[in-house]
Amino acid sequence: MTLETLSTNRSHGGTQGVYRHKSATTGTDMSFAIFVPDNPEGAKLPVLWYLSGLTCTHANVMEKGEYRAACAQHGVIFVAPDTSPRGEGVPDDPDGAWDFGLGAGFYVDATAEPWAANYRMRSYVEDELPSLILRDFPAADMTRQGISGHSMGGHGALTVALRTPDRFRSVSAFAPIVAPMHCPWGEKALSNYLGEDREAWAAYDACALIAGGARLPDLLVDQGEADSFLEEQLKTHLLAEACEKAGQKATIRMQPGYDHSYYFISTFMAEHVGWHAERLKA
Amino acid sequence: MTLETLSTNRSHGGTQGVYRHKSATTGTDMSFAIFVPDNPEGAKLPVLWYLSGLTCTHANVMEKGEYRAACAQHGVIFVAPDTSPRGEGVPDDPDGAWDFGLGAGFYVDATAEPWAANYRMRSYVEDELPSLILRDFPAADMTRQGISGHSMGGHGALTVALRTPDRFRSVSAFAPIVAPMHCPWGEKALSNYLGEDREAWAAYDACALIAGGARLPDLLVDQGEADSFLEEQLKTHLLAEACEKAGQKATIRMQPGYDHSYYFISTFMAEHVGWHAERLKA
Repeated sequence: MTLETLSTNRSHGGTQGVYRHKSATTGTDMSFAIFVPDNPEGAKLPVLWYLSGLTCTHANVMEKGEYRAACAQHGVIFVAPDTSPRGEGVPDDPDGAWDFGLGAGFYVDATAEPWAANYRMRSYVEDELPSLILRDFPAADMTRQGISGHSMGGHGALTVALRTPDRFRSVSAFAPIVAPMHCPWGEKALSNYLGEDREAWAAYDACALIAGGARLPDLLVDQGEADSFLEEQLKTHLLAEACEKAGQKATIRMQPGYDHSYYFISTFMAEHVGWHAERLKA
Repeated sequence: MTLETLSTNRSHGGTQGVYRHKSATTGTDMSFAIFVPDNPEGAKLPVLWYLSGLTCTHANVMEKGEYRAACAQHGVIFVAPDTSPRGEGVPDDPDGAWDFGLGAGFYVDATAEPWAANYRMRSYVEDELPSLILRDFPAADMTRQGISGHSMGGHGALTVALRTPDRFRSVSAFAPIVAPMHCPWGEKALSNYLGEDREAWAAYDACALIAGGARLPDLLVDQGEADSFLEEQLKTHLLAEACEKAGQKATIRMQPGYDHSYYFISTFMAEHVGWHAERLKA
C-alpha cells in the first residue's frame, strides 16, 4: 500500500500530484490524481471526490477540468480516481467497445465472471482509496467530504453518496447517467458485471435508490441541452421526477447549448467547487 | 481562403472553435483555435493572440490553458495558431528531433532550403491569419490586439510585437525564449531556417531587437524558478538586463516552485488575460 509518486507539479498555489499504488481491492496497480492546496498552517482540509466518465483515466479532469483555481481559493483537496482496473490479465470488453470493461468500471463491485476478481470500483472508491488518502495526505479531513462526477462518474457520485448517507455533506454531478437500469450503457454494464438478476442492479441506480428511500444531503446537477447522450443514455428528467416524488432537495439545471465535453464541465466546475466548499466548511 | 469548421463547443459563455484553411503563406492546410465570447450587442471585441511552444498545436492551450473564463469575463477573443506548417511534403528535422521542424516553426520566415517554401510562420502570424480573423469573425477589432505566448511562443510574441510596434497594445509571455541567438534551441532553429549569417538572426531575437531600439508598449513575463529549461534555454535574466539597459518598461516575475508545463501557464493565465484586457479596453 505504499504510494509511488508518478508526478507532482506546482499549480494555482498548490500541488497537483499523480500517485500509483497496488490495490488489494482490484488486484491491480491503480493511479489517481490529487490536488492539495498550500496549507501552511496545517489545518485539515475538506476533500472533494470527482469520479470520471467512460474512457477516462485520472488525467482527463486533471488536464481539462479547470478545478485548481477554485480548490485553492476555497482550500479544498480534489481527488480523481481512475475509472477501472487496468493492466495485464484484466479482462476487457470482448469486442473492444469503449462503453464497457477498461475505462468503464461503472463504480460497481462485479459479481459475475470474468469481472468479479478485478472490477471492484465500488469498494475501491468507498473504502480503499479513502483510507489511503487519509493516511498519506495529513491535511485531509474525512469528516468533511463532497463528491461529484461526470456521466458514468456522475452515476458513481450519486450512487456512492446514496449508499453511504453519513459520508458526504455535498453531492453534485455533471451530465450524470441517472438511471442505468433504463439506458443502454447501464443495461450492458450491469448485466455483465452483476448478471441478469435486475434486483441486484438497484444498488447501482440513483433513481431506484431514491425511490427506495435513500437520500442525499443536497444535490446540484448541470446538464447540457445539446448533449448528444441526453435522450438515450442520461435521461435527466428521470432524476428530476424521482427527486420530486421523494421530496429530495435538488437543483437540476439544464444548460442551453452545452454538450457532453470538458468544455461544458470546465464551464461550471468553479461553481460546483464553490457550492461544495460552502457546505464542507459550514 | 474559405474556413472549414473542424469543431465548435459552447464553453464559458462563448464558443470555442477550431478551423482549418489553405494557407497561401505556408502552402499547406493550417488549423487554429479561436474562442469568441458571446457578444449579443455585436460590439467589436479586442483580440488576444497566443503563440504556443515547441511540439504544440493549437490544441494544447485550448485544452489546458484555462483562458476561457477570463476571456468571457473581459470580452476578449483568444486566437491560438499552430506552431508550424504540417502535411505531406513538409520537411521535418532529419533526426526527428522535437525541437526543430514540425511543431517548431519558431515564428520565422525561413530563407534556407529545404525550409523556405513552407516554414513561413512569421508572415502567417503577422499577415495572413490576422486578415482571416478580421474577415470571418466580425466581432474582432484589429485596432485592439494583444499578444502572448509560451516558451518558443513567448519568443514569437516578443519578436512579432517588437517588429510591429503599432499593432499591439499589450505583450506578455510565459517562460519565453528571450535570446534565441544565445541558446541551443534558438541556434539550431535560426542556423537551419536562416543560414549561418548571424546578422539575419537578429530580427528574431527579442534581446537583440530591444538593444537595436525596438520597443514594446508594455510587457508582463512570468517565469517558473523550477523550470528545467531556465538556465540553458530561456535565460530570463538576459531579457531583464536588456529592458533595464534600454529603459523598456517591463514586469518580469520569477515564480518559485513552478515548472515549464501548462500547470504553470494555467496558474497565471487569468491574470495575464486581465492584464491585457485592461490595456485593450483602455
